[in-house]
Amino acid sequence: MKSVQSTKRFFNNIMNGDIEMKPIIAVTMGDPSSIGAELSVKAMARKDIYENCKPLIVGDFSVMEEAKAILGMDDIRLNPIQDVKDAVFTHGTIDVYDMKLIKGSDIQFGEIKALYGDAAFQYVVKAIELAKTGEVDATVTNAISKESINLAGHHFAGHTEIYAHYTETKDYAMMLVHNNLRVVHVSTHVSLREACDRVKKERVLKCIELANEACRMIGIEEPTVAVAGLNPHAGENGMFGHEEIEEIIPAIEEAKSKNIKVEGPAPPDTVFPKALGGWYDVVVVMYHDQGHIPLKTVGFVYDKDLNKWKAVEGVNITLGLPIIRVSVDHGTAFDQAGKGTASEISLVNSIQYAIEFSRNKK
Amino acid sequence: MKSVQSTKRFFNNIMNGDIEMKPIIAVTMGDPSSIGAELSVKAMARKDIYENCKPLIVGDFSVMEEAKAILGMDDIRLNPIQDVKDAVFTHGTIDVYDMKLIKGSDIQFGEIKALYGDAAFQYVVKAIELAKTGEVDATVTNAISKESINLAGHHFAGHTEIYAHYTETKDYAMMLVHNNLRVVHVSTHVSLREACDRVKKERVLKCIELANEACRMIGIEEPTVAVAGLNPHAGENGMFGHEEIEEIIPAIEEAKSKNIKVEGPAPPDTVFPKALGGWYDVVVVMYHDQGHIPLKTVGFVYDKDLNKWKAVEGVNITLGLPIIRVSVDHGTAFDQAGKGTASEISLVNSIQYAIEFSRNKK
Repeated sequence: MKSVQSTKRFFNNIMNGDIEMKPIIAVTMGDPSSIGAELSVKAMARKDIYENCKPLIVGDFSVMEEAKAILGMDDIRLNPIQDVKDAVFTHGTIDVYDMKLIKGSDIQFGEIKALYGDAAFQYVVKAIELAKTGEVDATVTNAISKESINLAGHHFAGHTEIYAHYTETKDYAMMLVHNNLRVVHVSTHVSLREACDRVKKERVLKCIELANEACRMIGIEEPTVAVAGLNPHAGENGMFGHEEIEEIIPAIEEAKSKNIKVEGPAPPDTVFPKALGGWYDVVVVMYHDQGHIPLKTVGFVYDKDLNKWKAVEGVNITLGLPIIRVSVDHGTAFDQAGKGTASEISLVNSIQYAIEFSRNKK
Repeated sequence: MKSVQSTKRFFNNIMNGDIEMKPIIAVTMGDPSSIGAELSVKAMARKDIYENCKPLIVGDFSVMEEAKAILGMDDIRLNPIQDVKDAVFTHGTIDVYDMKLIKGSDIQFGEIKALYGDAAFQYVVKAIELAKTGEVDATVTNAISKESINLAGHHFAGHTEIYAHYTETKDYAMMLVHNNLRVVHVSTHVSLREACDRVKKERVLKCIELANEACRMIGIEEPTVAVAGLNPHAGENGMFGHEEIEEIIPAIEEAKSKNIKVEGPAPPDTVFPKALGGWYDVVVVMYHDQGHIPLKTVGFVYDKDLNKWKAVEGVNITLGLPIIRVSVDHGTAFDQAGKGTASEISLVNSIQYAIEFSRNKK
């Protein structure tokens, strides 16, 4: 689904001797009063990022300058641009697609404000636009504040809904990844009762297909997809609930008839250690916490003495969109903003996933 | 709640110079065609077990002999007894409370049979009886086959229900433990829809109290109890479900008024890494998989090449009973039975927990 422009760029690159095309990745800066700008500077300071892609930040030059100063990274140069063509994509210089919305020196870190919410929203909309026109190959998002964007009058539950709206996508699903554990959600931000109602054959089948396709896009040639049951012990043959029999098994059967390698319904409590052990490449999960609990149990590390997270690893990928979107798996971390101490690992992992997806996108 | 007999025994021990009384632990042998007998021999072969307790197996001498032969443990002696008073409690000799129900040489490993189900059931009933009369201080159970016990006409969903029935207990809860992760379940073997219905203030409060008491019994002086929400993000102030507002928060408030250190409702996806990091001592969970998923994600390890579990660690403790019951956290593992290869770690951990509970039982 490469656009005409990115295909043109591909051939131009070959003409210029750049045989192995590096994908252009737009990284949104996230909420200006969050850790997003700091993480962006930290991630872009890593040489390995530039070895595999051409990254640029969509945000505010002035805020990035402030973050660079907080981090004391004097050897890094910032290059404000208004057009992707002006990016230099060279390690040591961070290209910033400058939206000129916020003044860095005025920022009050950790504040919920319509001003910040609107800016964060505009960065996302611009990144989506750049991906839709093919000027960039993929997008990576830093965290936004749902409260701030709603204060600014942008009524969306989060990034995923913004992306779905601006790309007119109906069938999408949230995939979370930490190392070799990958989960794709049948539903996310709804009550557990509503999540039970949303376990429907067509939706489960769609998620199996999206999970299978996502694995292929990151280079797993013949993925094994596990489908978790909804109920304990996957219902134990109807003893504890009937969704497995009425909805999940028919979806699995249809996926098999489409030549997808799929197993299940698997007992929800043992499917994740089996996936971690390499038996499954991806697990289709029936509700938010069925996927989020195992992911964060392995990816998050809490420091009791400091009363804060020591690690919040994992990435969040929106499947089913016509463009690529990968996100950090943590929030705005307002309490850490402006201190320069937050870890860029989740952002770096997100960029790496965006690169993988770009390489394999048809 | 020590019985008269165990108090008598305590003073007899002191009279005999055995100042630090070791608790007597009855370990049921589990299903005769399962890995239970092998695990029992392996666990009893460990010297450290005898340093901290006086263990005996409730099962069949003949089956234990067969298991010993399979394991080639010629240096271990078996001592068949019909009365706890005849036990020698000495490392190198395994005391077997011999129920004389099954002939070891006839066993067909991995078979579902009423004969095996009845025997496994009788071992459990005997262990309960020994604990109720105070002849033993605690009970530990190996796995039984629900199918086999039901074939034998004993219509129970599992151990927990057998214990509840024979001790006439109504308010009990399943606690799972792996290292410092402890979870107590508001409900277990019901559909997810029914689990939602079972989130009621009184039940949640009961589970908070049981969780708090259990932590104290294993030596945590002032436990911090976390209560997980039912819905994603713990409902996000009623946006995704109302059980937190209507049932869980009132239960937490009442627990606080009873001087229990309790926090919540906590978002279900981050509460477990926080508990693993030591921030909470125990988590009250709203349904089977909310507790089982994080426990097995950290406690179970799958070996892809061998297509089997490399480790199935964790113990299962029934809270609220008048007697102590700890169980292995795995099943009958029929496919491994008779091979001598299964790991005794979960059984050893279970015995250690039974010792802790015995020491601190009021």
